[in-house]
Amino acid sequence: MSVFPSLERLVEPRSVVIVGASSREGSQGHRLVMNVLEHSRFAGDVHLVNPSGLSICGRPCWPSIDAVPAGDIDVALVIVNASRVMEALRQCAARGIPFAIVMSSGFAEADEAGKALEAEIADLCRATGLRVYGPNCPGFVNVRDRIGLTFSPAFKDDLNGGAIGLATQGGGLGRNVLQSLSYGEGVGLWFSAGNEVDLGVPDFIAHMATDPRISVIAVLMEGIKDGRKLIDALKLARENAKPVVILKVGRSELGVRAAQSHTASIAGSAAVNSAVFRQYGAIEVDDLSELAAVSKLCLRARTLGGDGVCVLSFSGGACALAADAVGAAQLPMASLHEQTTAALREVLPAFASVANPVDTTADIMRDSAMTSACLRTLCEEPNVGAVLFPIPMDYGDITGAMASAIVEASRTSKAVVVPVWMSRRMGKGFQMLESNGLQPFLSVTEAVRALKKVHDWRAGQISACAAQTPAAHGDTGVSGGAEVGQGQMVGATPALTEVDAKRLLGRHGIVVPSGELTMSAAAAAETATRIGFPCVMKVVSPDIAHKTEAGGVRLNLETAADARTAYDEIVANAGRYRPDAIVEGVLVERMLPPGGREMLVGVHRDEAFGPVLTVGLGGILVEVLKDVSHRVIPVDHADARRMIAELRHSDLLGAVRGQPPADVEALAALLVQVSEFVERAHGAIDQLDINPVWVGALGEGAIALDALMVLAQGADANAL
Amino acid sequence: MSVFPSLERLVEPRSVVIVGASSREGSQGHRLVMNVLEHSRFAGDVHLVNPSGLSICGRPCWPSIDAVPAGDIDVALVIVNASRVMEALRQCAARGIPFAIVMSSGFAEADEAGKALEAEIADLCRATGLRVYGPNCPGFVNVRDRIGLTFSPAFKDDLNGGAIGLATQGGGLGRNVLQSLSYGEGVGLWFSAGNEVDLGVPDFIAHMATDPRISVIAVLMEGIKDGRKLIDALKLARENAKPVVILKVGRSELGVRAAQSHTASIAGSAAVNSAVFRQYGAIEVDDLSELAAVSKLCLRARTLGGDGVCVLSFSGGACALAADAVGAAQLPMASLHEQTTAALREVLPAFASVANPVDTTADIMRDSAMTSACLRTLCEEPNVGAVLFPIPMDYGDITGAMASAIVEASRTSKAVVVPVWMSRRMGKGFQMLESNGLQPFLSVTEAVRALKKVHDWRAGQISACAAQTPAAHGDTGVSGGAEVGQGQMVGATPALTEVDAKRLLGRHGIVVPSGELTMSAAAAAETATRIGFPCVMKVVSPDIAHKTEAGGVRLNLETAADARTAYDEIVANAGRYRPDAIVEGVLVERMLPPGGREMLVGVHRDEAFGPVLTVGLGGILVEVLKDVSHRVIPVDHADARRMIAELRHSDLLGAVRGQPPADVEALAALLVQVSEFVERAHGAIDQLDINPVWVGALGEGAIALDALMVLAQGADANAL
Repeated sequence: MSVFPSLERLVEPRSVVIVGASSREGSQGHRLVMNVLEHSRFAGDVHLVNPSGLSICGRPCWPSIDAVPAGDIDVALVIVNASRVMEALRQCAARGIPFAIVMSSGFAEADEAGKALEAEIADLCRATGLRVYGPNCPGFVNVRDRIGLTFSPAFKDDLNGGAIGLATQGGGLGRNVLQSLSYGEGVGLWFSAGNEVDLGVPDFIAHMATDPRISVIAVLMEGIKDGRKLIDALKLARENAKPVVILKVGRSELGVRAAQSHTASIAGSAAVNSAVFRQYGAIEVDDLSELAAVSKLCLRARTLGGDGVCVLSFSGGACALAADAVGAAQLPMASLHEQTTAALREVLPAFASVANPVDTTADIMRDSAMTSACLRTLCEEPNVGAVLFPIPMDYGDITGAMASAIVEASRTSKAVVVPVWMSRRMGKGFQMLESNGLQPFLSVTEAVRALKKVHDWRAGQISACAAQTPAAHGDTGVSGGAEVGQGQMVGATPALTEVDAKRLLGRHGIVVPSGELTMSAAAAAETATRIGFPCVMKVVSPDIAHKTEAGGVRLNLETAADARTAYDEIVANAGRYRPDAIVEGVLVERMLPPGGREMLVGVHRDEAFGPVLTVGLGGILVEVLKDVSHRVIPVDHADARRMIAELRHSDLLGAVRGQPPADVEALAALLVQVSEFVERAHGAIDQLDINPVWVGALGEGAIALDALMVLAQGADANAL
Repeated sequence: MSVFPSLERLVEPRSVVIVGASSREGSQGHRLVMNVLEHSRFAGDVHLVNPSGLSICGRPCWPSIDAVPAGDIDVALVIVNASRVMEALRQCAARGIPFAIVMSSGFAEADEAGKALEAEIADLCRATGLRVYGPNCPGFVNVRDRIGLTFSPAFKDDLNGGAIGLATQGGGLGRNVLQSLSYGEGVGLWFSAGNEVDLGVPDFIAHMATDPRISVIAVLMEGIKDGRKLIDALKLARENAKPVVILKVGRSELGVRAAQSHTASIAGSAAVNSAVFRQYGAIEVDDLSELAAVSKLCLRARTLGGDGVCVLSFSGGACALAADAVGAAQLPMASLHEQTTAALREVLPAFASVANPVDTTADIMRDSAMTSACLRTLCEEPNVGAVLFPIPMDYGDITGAMASAIVEASRTSKAVVVPVWMSRRMGKGFQMLESNGLQPFLSVTEAVRALKKVHDWRAGQISACAAQTPAAHGDTGVSGGAEVGQGQMVGATPALTEVDAKRLLGRHGIVVPSGELTMSAAAAAETATRIGFPCVMKVVSPDIAHKTEAGGVRLNLETAADARTAYDEIVANAGRYRPDAIVEGVLVERMLPPGGREMLVGVHRDEAFGPVLTVGLGGILVEVLKDVSHRVIPVDHADARRMIAELRHSDLLGAVRGQPPADVEALAALLVQVSEFVERAHGAIDQLDINPVWVGALGEGAIALDALMVLAQGADANAL
């Protein structure tokens, strides 16, 4: 089912060729050769290509890839000048080499000529099946098997492999993550994707999602080249129950500018990116230290037992501080069973607090066996998933011994012990925790943020696994027989009229008010009488976007006479407002009972991810609260429910101030219908705004009161 | 003007007596003696008191304070068993010793007997003028003059004095702050207030506010014993332009429980505490590391030149990450003058970015002189107040040399250079920055948060200094001649009726709708006709709190006949709703035009701070948005404006969705009137809820549509 290539021969190659091998010390070509020949533990064949014909490290250099003796080659490492890259890649393709890593720079990040070169590479890949990694990247590092297909002088120190997989675009910050994970389980594979002309971050995530030696995937991105592919990769990771932790740099305008000045990617909209990460179960983090810390915690907390956090410290102040942070993060505090508190009571002095937070008092500093005993007891408590252990001070040997007790307890505990080293003196206790891979947090806030993210991810995995049966819902209120007008499709603003937009929505199952387009005062009166009072009348004109402003809307009409008068007034107002406007008629609709909530539902096209569905509070609250949530389409019923629940003020849909709760299920169903409609339209819908959506009380449904729809240029409304 | 005692003789004593001096190694009494005699640089007299008559370190022990030879004594250090503390303090008072530091525990934190002891101490202080510090505290440390009036074994390492003053309650976390500020300018004075039976955190803040050797005040609190005194101390600090940085532990319910289990303070309401800190210009922080870091940054940024931040790094990713964080924090990025970018261009390679963020590229790693040149240039740029310098990796000697350049630049720069050490390898570069007191941040997010807090504090200082002339405003809409009824003052719920509450408010200048209490259908019709239609009618009964629910409210009455009918219906409904209710009549009021914003204004009594004023969004939004802001009373017009501006959705008061902007000045004036009313009432008002306050368009004023007022037991409404 996977759309992703198998990267096995790239990740674990048995034969490589280095194109641009150099004997000049300090050159990238030389460092690459040294990394592969000297610093790697690479048993396969290494071929060197350099037209000079020199030999390097006693190995011959071939003048070209063609000249390399017969035999399978898995990966070509290309580090020649940008102008000579195409030639090398053509030879790779001709020879059937499946992968080329192009480390050279001077492509899209440099100038237009470089962009053109990238287009050529992409064409070659499509035509020949060659897969290209890069260009403009430091290469690939398989730390766990000690294979360095990179020119980085730091590779020789990349010694700490492990079950964390890392995918980045730029190289610089990626190395920070490697350094941060120097102890315990570290980074096993590091893909640094560069300009992503062919293979990119999604391909690497996808590989790691099914690589049995990778458990957690850390991702650092500055731009998103192919949003849909990224989504597929995130899905694959979720199916394989592997957390993906993402830091997306370039979220603010300032950050985008900074990122763009050194990469060639689209930054994407921060709100949509975050929504996608949430939608597909990735963990988004805000800082680089958090990327490493949360990845590590995901790994350490793999076998998390209970769900609650227990705070343990020998300082009352630290206990209160940590409990505050846990409370503020809305993380569950574990409640301790009586036998647990009894066991603590046996170990601790009488004035200690054995409730959660457990304040051992400074008495525990006398004897590290007390720390061990407390940890053992808490780690065995079934309600405890994590023990948060803030150490407020460096007390030399005393905190050193405590650290030993923590390391010891961590070895066998099913609960994860999370030490926080709060002092800036990084004494032996810190070193002990760090070198044993416990990655102590440096502040309580950071530790709690990380725990919260891991906790939420786990909760999301569980709910994603639970079966979700969408509730059946929705009758259409209008019959959608009439043809949709095409007149307004020509010209600069191909927006459909309200009548046409509603007709289309109605045809796809979305409930709109009963109503009809009328073309005379008499017809309006007749229609109003037929559909029932009170009714609403609105001008219909492709030239009038702001109907209310134009005096083109009348509410609360109670009689046929009212409707007749309203018709004439609306037409007259429209004429005054814009004398050249083509007025197609006046829409007469049944007015809905008061008390409904006003929401908005919209669709727009995101550069990276395609059509994005938005739900939010409508009416006057739109502008002020700016309370919306997004999902990329398609959206299922469970997603739709989550979108609604995510709104900061979703409480407004509950029973507030004596109003009955709103029909949230109907709103969710409408979201799914809109998603399906847009999906079936295959790109024909550029923009859709249903604002307001009237959401009645439970059982009353959700109805699209107004709609603005813009089709893609050339799209045919009647085909939808 | 100050209500605070002079602490000079406590802070810089010339003679002390140690009551409970001990020769037993490891005992607190012995450690205290050693700290004063051995580890302090204390030239004054030290007297030892111990009834055993031993001599310690060759000095005689006197059997009691009375027995100490004649001469002035500034401070008594009391470390005897709790049961013997009173006796010692009585002797202090008798001898005229001005200060006693009671380190002993076993007081309010222990049991009821301890609480009683504290009450006795307080009485003694009041009666004699003796000032007591503690009990249950580790003592006082004057680091800068090397005087340790403490039994802490860590005192001997407290060597790094400086211009930061620290006030804490518990001891444990305070020491963390000292450790965090081990280099450069550190903590000059550390007051650890313990149970605050007499002297407390506010007294210590007040001392430091006027101590010329203290520039920044760091405060760590778990409880607030006397809120009004704290406010006075914060005011004093603000007047002296000294930033006060506060970490208040015990903000969540969990944290409160944890804090209470080891202190004897009231936690206070987190929202009110935060509002007070904001109101009086203190900087609130969320974590211990932040307390030290922000305090240090306040100190380092004292001479901040420009206002903007400039990001400088040799990694494009780090530049983008930092720029993101600056953008997210809404910190201003400095725009660079042309001569600055030209100067950078001269130093940096062609492909570097010389806009802000300045991405030097990794080229800068070749030569630390480039770092120096860039820093020099940026520090001279008038728009730059701070240079944020993220260092994403530890590159050994290379980052070591960079750190030297930063230290060098910091010596003379008027802009503050803020290094961020992003790696977990704390190599020589980190050590260089740390040991030179530059206190590198460990993550970009932390650095930006701290910069933001310092920036906002500065902005607040500037606006607090600017003269504020409150706009004149407010006509009262009703004449408040009638007596306020007393009937409902007796019994369990001394709430005034709406009519009485409004009469009182009206009397104090707060605008209420024109209206009258009527007692018959005929009177209602007559009144309605006189005040004009449309009108509103509401039941008035001390027994009916929820008037709408009782069917006791009619809106939009258009004729005298309507009013007549409404009267009878309202009275009938009230009878059905609660047959035993005493109905005093029906209030007839002029109805206000639609389109006004609904706000709420309230007053409640905070345990720590007394009467607190609240403003928020009213109507249906109250419950859902929970968007309120607080200030303690009194509130002036500028405060009131800030309260309104602080609301998350203050935009609602602007021009939204075609509505004209609301009369914010009138709302601010109403807040000031309420504040003045409550202040004049001298504690008679227990609770006041004006909800909704109708706020019209600019010039239309703000009117109290409904009011609930609860007086303190025994208060006389007619005296208000």
